[in-house]
Amino acid sequence: MNFSSKLLEEAVNAFASLPGIGKKTALRLVLHLCKGELENSETFANAILNMRRGIKSCSKCHNLSDEEVCVICRDQRREQGVICVVESIRDVMAIEDTGQFRGVYHVLGGVISPLEGVGPGELNIDSLVQRIQTGEVREIIMAISPTIEGETTIFFISKKLRDLPVQISTIARGVSFGGELEYADELTLGRSITARVPYRNVD
Amino acid sequence: MNFSSKLLEEAVNAFASLPGIGKKTALRLVLHLCKGELENSETFANAILNMRRGIKSCSKCHNLSDEEVCVICRDQRREQGVICVVESIRDVMAIEDTGQFRGVYHVLGGVISPLEGVGPGELNIDSLVQRIQTGEVREIIMAISPTIEGETTIFFISKKLRDLPVQISTIARGVSFGGELEYADELTLGRSITARVPYRNVD
Repeated sequence: MNFSSKLLEEAVNAFASLPGIGKKTALRLVLHLCKGELENSETFANAILNMRRGIKSCSKCHNLSDEEVCVICRDQRREQGVICVVESIRDVMAIEDTGQFRGVYHVLGGVISPLEGVGPGELNIDSLVQRIQTGEVREIIMAISPTIEGETTIFFISKKLRDLPVQISTIARGVSFGGELEYADELTLGRSITARVPYRNVD
Repeated sequence: MNFSSKLLEEAVNAFASLPGIGKKTALRLVLHLCKGELENSETFANAILNMRRGIKSCSKCHNLSDEEVCVICRDQRREQGVICVVESIRDVMAIEDTGQFRGVYHVLGGVISPLEGVGPGELNIDSLVQRIQTGEVREIIMAISPTIEGETTIFFISKKLRDLPVQISTIARGVSFGGELEYADELTLGRSITARVPYRNVD
């Protein structure tokens, strides 16, 4: 790309350094900001700076937070005795969006993956064990992707918690609601038959 | 989306306000910046602020520029007597990328489009006429999209320049190099036959 302006080039390169944004998209975004008011660009840049400078990791659950302890952990109406263990912050948001969970979270920051050089030491597993040892935790729900790495991580954590009086459960797996049976993969369909549940009327 | 952090939410909204970026993509980008060094986010935000605060419109050709007159207009090795008239800055970059043009540009800032409320007054047409009246301009090349709006704009400009001693040309239109004949649209194919050119050996 031939830029007639160094400033333009640097802004395009800044956008293009983000994942999934190529040079052409970056140029489109920069030209959009160019056309708009100066104020809009300042709001945009400041939102990013404020976020990056001010954001913290919750000292209890490792979720992103504006303060030392995140709003979910601080919320006394939530069941502090039920911890949902997830891989990432995005999973917290996805589960919060369902509105079906009233406990608290623990963000691992990934899953054990020897191929990518992620061992248990890189994840927030010790702090989870500590939370369970010190707090009054009744149940932990493993909401982790059903991949080999995910299953390994669940297995590792369950071994660590073997001697603690806490119930471990995993989220239910099976055919999606609205999914067509013939398009479900064999493993999911097979397991959903072996792990069948008694029929209940939904009221 | 349920954000546990106000700062995160504001940064995501900032990204999502850009064209073609939805909330999910915005979240992915913000989390990427979160994971990276603080320095990277500062470089990113500063590149945008510096660009938006420092960038100017070239007083001659209306291209984006770091200074009063852009690098292309200032370049004395370029033919100042040949002006290529384009719709937008992106077109300047596209033509520069070909390396086939050694003249200068004039950015209109759009095309005449009554449906979108863009009249000749909104475009940089008067300054083009002025450039031709005062400078030693030999030829102007209309590199404008072959749409109804584009053709209207070319017609309007050509009428304005009728009494001036300047040659007006348009870029060649026809079947693309590497394009298959059967997939070319009828209008292009038809015109490319009526506007056929004598065969020359390319050396």
